[in-house]
Amino acid sequence: MSGWLESLEGLAVSRSKAGLTRRLRPRPAGDPVVDLAGNDYLGLATHHEVIEASVRGLRAYGLGATGSRLVRGSSVAHADLEAELAGWMGAGSALVFSSGYLANLAAVRSLTAVCDLIVSDAYNHASLIDGCKISGVRTVVAPHNSPRAVAELLDAHGGRALVVTESVFSVDGDLAPLAELHEVTAARGALLLVDDAHALGLLGPAGAGGVAAAGLAGRSDVVVTATLSKSLGGAGGVVAGPPQFIRHLIDTGRTFIYDTALPPAVAAGVHEAVRTARLADDRRARLLARGALTVARLREAGFEVSPPAAGVLSVMAPGPEAALAWAEDCRDRGVAVGCFRPPSTPDGSSRLRLTLNAGVSDADFARALAVIVECSP
Amino acid sequence: MSGWLESLEGLAVSRSKAGLTRRLRPRPAGDPVVDLAGNDYLGLATHHEVIEASVRGLRAYGLGATGSRLVRGSSVAHADLEAELAGWMGAGSALVFSSGYLANLAAVRSLTAVCDLIVSDAYNHASLIDGCKISGVRTVVAPHNSPRAVAELLDAHGGRALVVTESVFSVDGDLAPLAELHEVTAARGALLLVDDAHALGLLGPAGAGGVAAAGLAGRSDVVVTATLSKSLGGAGGVVAGPPQFIRHLIDTGRTFIYDTALPPAVAAGVHEAVRTARLADDRRARLLARGALTVARLREAGFEVSPPAAGVLSVMAPGPEAALAWAEDCRDRGVAVGCFRPPSTPDGSSRLRLTLNAGVSDADFARALAVIVECSP
Ligand SMILES: Cc1ncc(COP(=O)(O)O)c(C=O)c1O
Ligand SMILES: Cc1ncc(COP(=O)(O)O)c(C=O)c1O
Repeated sequence: MSGWLESLEGLAVSRSKAGLTRRLRPRPAGDPVVDLAGNDYLGLATHHEVIEASVRGLRAYGLGATGSRLVRGSSVAHADLEAELAGWMGAGSALVFSSGYLANLAAVRSLTAVCDLIVSDAYNHASLIDGCKISGVRTVVAPHNSPRAVAELLDAHGGRALVVTESVFSVDGDLAPLAELHEVTAARGALLLVDDAHALGLLGPAGAGGVAAAGLAGRSDVVVTATLSKSLGGAGGVVAGPPQFIRHLIDTGRTFIYDTALPPAVAAGVHEAVRTARLADDRRARLLARGALTVARLREAGFEVSPPAAGVLSVMAPGPEAALAWAEDCRDRGVAVGCFRPPSTPDGSSRLRLTLNAGVSDADFARALAVIVECSP
Repeated sequence: MSGWLESLEGLAVSRSKAGLTRRLRPRPAGDPVVDLAGNDYLGLATHHEVIEASVRGLRAYGLGATGSRLVRGSSVAHADLEAELAGWMGAGSALVFSSGYLANLAAVRSLTAVCDLIVSDAYNHASLIDGCKISGVRTVVAPHNSPRAVAELLDAHGGRALVVTESVFSVDGDLAPLAELHEVTAARGALLLVDDAHALGLLGPAGAGGVAAAGLAGRSDVVVTATLSKSLGGAGGVVAGPPQFIRHLIDTGRTFIYDTALPPAVAAGVHEAVRTARLADDRRARLLARGALTVARLREAGFEVSPPAAGVLSVMAPGPEAALAWAEDCRDRGVAVGCFRPPSTPDGSSRLRLTLNAGVSDADFARALAVIVECSP
């Protein structure tokens, strides 16, 4: 029985011809590369106190959680982290998942217990799209960042609807018009689910996120999801919202109930990262300045660049192969940048994706910008 | 807008009436409870060398992976672990995911690139069921552990089919007839996907798993998934199979591409756990003896107990509330046991789920058995 492997090889050849082959590049410990590709916006993944908090967690709890949250997986480290996250994000309750992906699957699916239509932004992350799909509920894709289109879709619908969006979008780094979207949903009795993955730690008072920045924290018709793997430098996901909804997730969320909990030591490290992030206005100011510098420098050099709402910028490339060559040349010169090609890009066009990282030194950051310009196609 | 919260409260009341409310119980560090509920079968979550390997990983790499495997998330720790897992499991290639749940979603969905029917065992884990659902491919549920029924379903189908099963089932701990199933699939050009979550580390030569024990390791028509969160004491998942299939997963697996990588320090700890597990015939022998002892002791006391194929046993309870009370009485007396009620049980009946743990001392284990008998309804 090898016919299937030949079919897979055929598919691989087609991908290769389209410039869509992907390659894993394992990085060594202490990699000297300047990182403008990862999502460690505040530089907390390698922050001394964060690492030591996780080391203590390892010694106290062991490596893994040893079971699902409802069996043996819940530790005091999880409970403490949840209380801290709820307080920070201004939500009634918060529930930690083993990843942002699984948090999104649970949040979307569980909200459809009380909604019969989903309106999903065209540029939403794969995990939100999969959440819509697995819910089995009718899903309509709305044009990107268009409260007017959302309003029309809701007006055409009779029952209760769920509107799903990111706050800062993961590829282009632009911000959703959250306040307008919430006006639209609130006026029509719809719920709003916001994935704050790329804004938590970066926007809002004390970095409380894009939802908090829009004045929507704690609203009873808003549910927020986020990952603990980006500005918090760790791993895991969170759903924050009214306690009744979190209760519903605990009792019915399949990707919560049937999944091994986040390792307690990771929860402990992330908890320290939250404490640090809440006080990190200096790091947030550094990112803002770097965002402005990057846009200025790249526009000067003639590139089409999106101004970052938080820590992500995207720079257009002529095509998938040019984007890949550009990124590889940068890496050969010691600068890691993201390269997004279909199907990872919402609009089918290829680009470099640059992320700002407060942990990179000023000198390294300036050098990285120069390398990006010099390696351009 | 609070109508939805009232609807959720209504659902919560119904669940409560049905005895299906779930409660998180955060455990403290150094919890003195005897653990017959978690999945740390070999006691490796708290093994000194495993923890120290992860501590070194934390200091070398930082807390999180900072990106998806294809951007900044792949480290040498991941690559080393993948090579070790492939060698151990006797597979051409292995790919690590951030959870077993996400590994299963990717494996099932990606295999449907070359299959147009899924035959899924009735007792399969939620993550496999969700994988079938999200693939969008027609799925037929086969009666539990029935190669004959699978053969009939395949015979009635024209195209290439995918048969999905666990090896050791997660709730009852019984073993699938893997060799017979493979005869059935091989004779009909179908593929076999086996979730080895509860057998890896426990069955087969050097603990290589249930697929290896059935003589099916490395077959070109078999794909194996497993979690790194059970006998390996850590977190994460793995898909092992022919290199062409792993290549396909890297290029197209949504839950691989769009998810932050497993923390490198967790990968490093799990790697040490694999090394230890390969040499742990003593721990496996201890589990075998404890399984036999448990069955004898509980049958003596008049209970209906399934003999464990590896480390999971299930003991029938009269109903969901009785099961819960039984488990809570045990915990009050210092013994953690699992309590499975609908919808977590495949057949709608409630039971205690006991897991064997080689890290528990003989004295604690004997005491735990006595407590379970004394607390019975
Ligand atoms: C917007 C968004 N949501 C969710 C996720 C998934 O989170 P995680 O990587 O923790 O699974 C990501 C990225 O990985 C993301 O960019
Ligand atoms: C059979 C089976 N498959 C998959 C999983 C999911 O693995 P993980 O917990 O690593 O997400 C589990 C348990 O959690 C399981 O029991």
